[in-house]
Amino acid sequence: MSPFRLLISRSEALKVLLENVKPVDRKEDIPIEHATNRVLAENVISERDVPPFDRAALDGYAVIAEDTYGASDLSPVSLKLTDVLHAGEQKKISVKRGECVRIATGCPIPEGANAVVMAEFTEEKAGKVMVYRAVYPGANIAKKGEDMAAGELVLREGEILNPAKIGVLAALGRRTVRVYEKPKVAIIPTGTEICEVGTELGEGQVYDVNSYTLTSLLLSNGARVGRSNIVPDKEESLEAALERFIGYDLIVFTGGSSVGERDLLVNVIQRRGEVLFHGVQIKPGKPTLFGVVNGTPVLGMPGYPTSCLSNAYIFLVPAVRKMARLPPIKQKTIKARMAKRIVSSTGREQFLPVKIADGKAYPVFKKSGDITSLSRAEGFMILPINVDVIEEGEEVTVTLLE
Amino acid sequence: MSPFRLLISRSEALKVLLENVKPVDRKEDIPIEHATNRVLAENVISERDVPPFDRAALDGYAVIAEDTYGASDLSPVSLKLTDVLHAGEQKKISVKRGECVRIATGCPIPEGANAVVMAEFTEEKAGKVMVYRAVYPGANIAKKGEDMAAGELVLREGEILNPAKIGVLAALGRRTVRVYEKPKVAIIPTGTEICEVGTELGEGQVYDVNSYTLTSLLLSNGARVGRSNIVPDKEESLEAALERFIGYDLIVFTGGSSVGERDLLVNVIQRRGEVLFHGVQIKPGKPTLFGVVNGTPVLGMPGYPTSCLSNAYIFLVPAVRKMARLPPIKQKTIKARMAKRIVSSTGREQFLPVKIADGKAYPVFKKSGDITSLSRAEGFMILPINVDVIEEGEEVTVTLLE
Repeated sequence: MSPFRLLISRSEALKVLLENVKPVDRKEDIPIEHATNRVLAENVISERDVPPFDRAALDGYAVIAEDTYGASDLSPVSLKLTDVLHAGEQKKISVKRGECVRIATGCPIPEGANAVVMAEFTEEKAGKVMVYRAVYPGANIAKKGEDMAAGELVLREGEILNPAKIGVLAALGRRTVRVYEKPKVAIIPTGTEICEVGTELGEGQVYDVNSYTLTSLLLSNGARVGRSNIVPDKEESLEAALERFIGYDLIVFTGGSSVGERDLLVNVIQRRGEVLFHGVQIKPGKPTLFGVVNGTPVLGMPGYPTSCLSNAYIFLVPAVRKMARLPPIKQKTIKARMAKRIVSSTGREQFLPVKIADGKAYPVFKKSGDITSLSRAEGFMILPINVDVIEEGEEVTVTLLE
Repeated sequence: MSPFRLLISRSEALKVLLENVKPVDRKEDIPIEHATNRVLAENVISERDVPPFDRAALDGYAVIAEDTYGASDLSPVSLKLTDVLHAGEQKKISVKRGECVRIATGCPIPEGANAVVMAEFTEEKAGKVMVYRAVYPGANIAKKGEDMAAGELVLREGEILNPAKIGVLAALGRRTVRVYEKPKVAIIPTGTEICEVGTELGEGQVYDVNSYTLTSLLLSNGARVGRSNIVPDKEESLEAALERFIGYDLIVFTGGSSVGERDLLVNVIQRRGEVLFHGVQIKPGKPTLFGVVNGTPVLGMPGYPTSCLSNAYIFLVPAVRKMARLPPIKQKTIKARMAKRIVSSTGREQFLPVKIADGKAYPVFKKSGDITSLSRAEGFMILPINVDVIEEGEEVTVTLLE
């Protein structure tokens, strides 16, 4: 029952973890409508001018600007209406001096015309159009290539696609886009005492919670998830499970809340690869374990649901986002006053879930095994190692869980 | 070519829209691992105690607390080790005065025992365990039902499921959860000049951008999307498309950037139902149109990609989130200094996309037809109707696009 050799700090553990996971290089082509929040794996260069032709930016009359010079409310210019262009109509027409063509927004500018007079500043009667406002050459025309010019780099590899960027791809006529694959994360729940949800609990058993909390968190942070059946606490079973998921981008074991069980996984990783840390100065979450086997990073998470999930926020999320090429989450923090005195003399940092009401932070932590505590939390605090007591009313910084 | 009758303000338009869309009442049962960000459609009452038995909260020795009273480093108590309980082991054992049982985290507490002494405060040798620390009755035991008691309301209808709440469902052994269905939104792109992505552009045509920007935005805001083929600008075609999607929770037409085309849709809605507004005092986006046909809300969005998308942020997103029972987006705003002088004398509010650098807001708007402007924006400002000029260096509030 030997406890941990040497606990490392949270920041050191995170550093080791991030150094040993790498962004996924695999790429895939997917339909643009499914690409929101995906990471672009190509430089998108416009293959065409957008718009593909000079077009009317509003409803009005295509004119030769020079014909309108000097036009005003008091001295309108009269032009001959020679044709009408409706949206989507394809006809070759042209405008000569003294003429105009009625034109709808988005229509190609007829040959000869070099400006559009807004409909509001005109009056049409008996084949004539009175123009009450002068326009300069180019007025109210969206020039060919003005939005994107052929050959222009419009989106860069590594950008995260959002509605507007997907719109850029659509404007280029793209049906699909090349993005980085999502990292594949294996979740391996372990423990003879762990029972599959949807089945009857045996004597002394509890349901598998960690597979589901981790899956939820991973899917929200750009990963794909493969889940193993529950694996018994035996070295050969753990090793077989590890073997099965080698080739995934990351393997996460959960469980092993007792020292004996933890040691089993340590032994397996040591035999097959290298243990990089085992034991972190954070409460809950001391048993967190990390190693590399055949180039595959392997993370051992605590078995207790709240310990597992809080450690997942601290370690798993940053690692997976790096693998998915997503930026670190911008965590919102707020200032609050501690609603009650907190004693934390553990010699470790402490993760403390809280609720916020009236600007006060109320701890919701019951025991580290309790999943309801985190489900009721609106945020968390991380108490430093060297702080034993936070007094009621003291100002604290709370990171909001979103 | 008559322009709009009476423009209403953005806030009035949003009010009318929100009054006429309703939260979806349909429910569905889905696997818990797919329920992240879904809205709970049931009160979840714990059907069992969690944990289902008193269990060890850490590795150590199950004892009768009274046996340890007075134990200290200098005067340890010696107890007889009678058995060992490994995780998941199912055996009926008991502890009597003067005895102890080695126990792993999570194991049921043996009959007779009422506390667990942490392994660190003991020493085991030759069938005896020296206990160096006194424990009170109940110490280091997670009591049956301490996390959730049978009959307790643990999650409420209307809550949005996150990893911890999904963990609560798993802890109860739930395989599925009842959630509200996502609202079904139909997107109907219109316009003879609009061309399907992935096909060759015809003369005078541009690609359909709005279907994709709107789909991206809708999927990120809790909706399902059904998309129509591109519909020509003819009343009978628009009416047939409307007919086909009646029964959806919301129908969105995009296109009709010219006054003539807009009028076609107005005519159809007026004939089949009621137009509630047509024309909003916002730039871009004046042509936005809203009505109700057979109880189905129908939104007409501008055809220009940036106008359409910016109006979608302003109108469509709040409407869809209400239908999806999601809270309004908490928009982050920052203060910045205007990087250049802006003139806005339109008599309408103006939506102005900006980039932020060195605390300065740079407008990225080119023309309202340009999709690249929004794709490069990091945020937007809404300039009030009564502000004509913002001077360089003036402080402004920017809403961040995320």
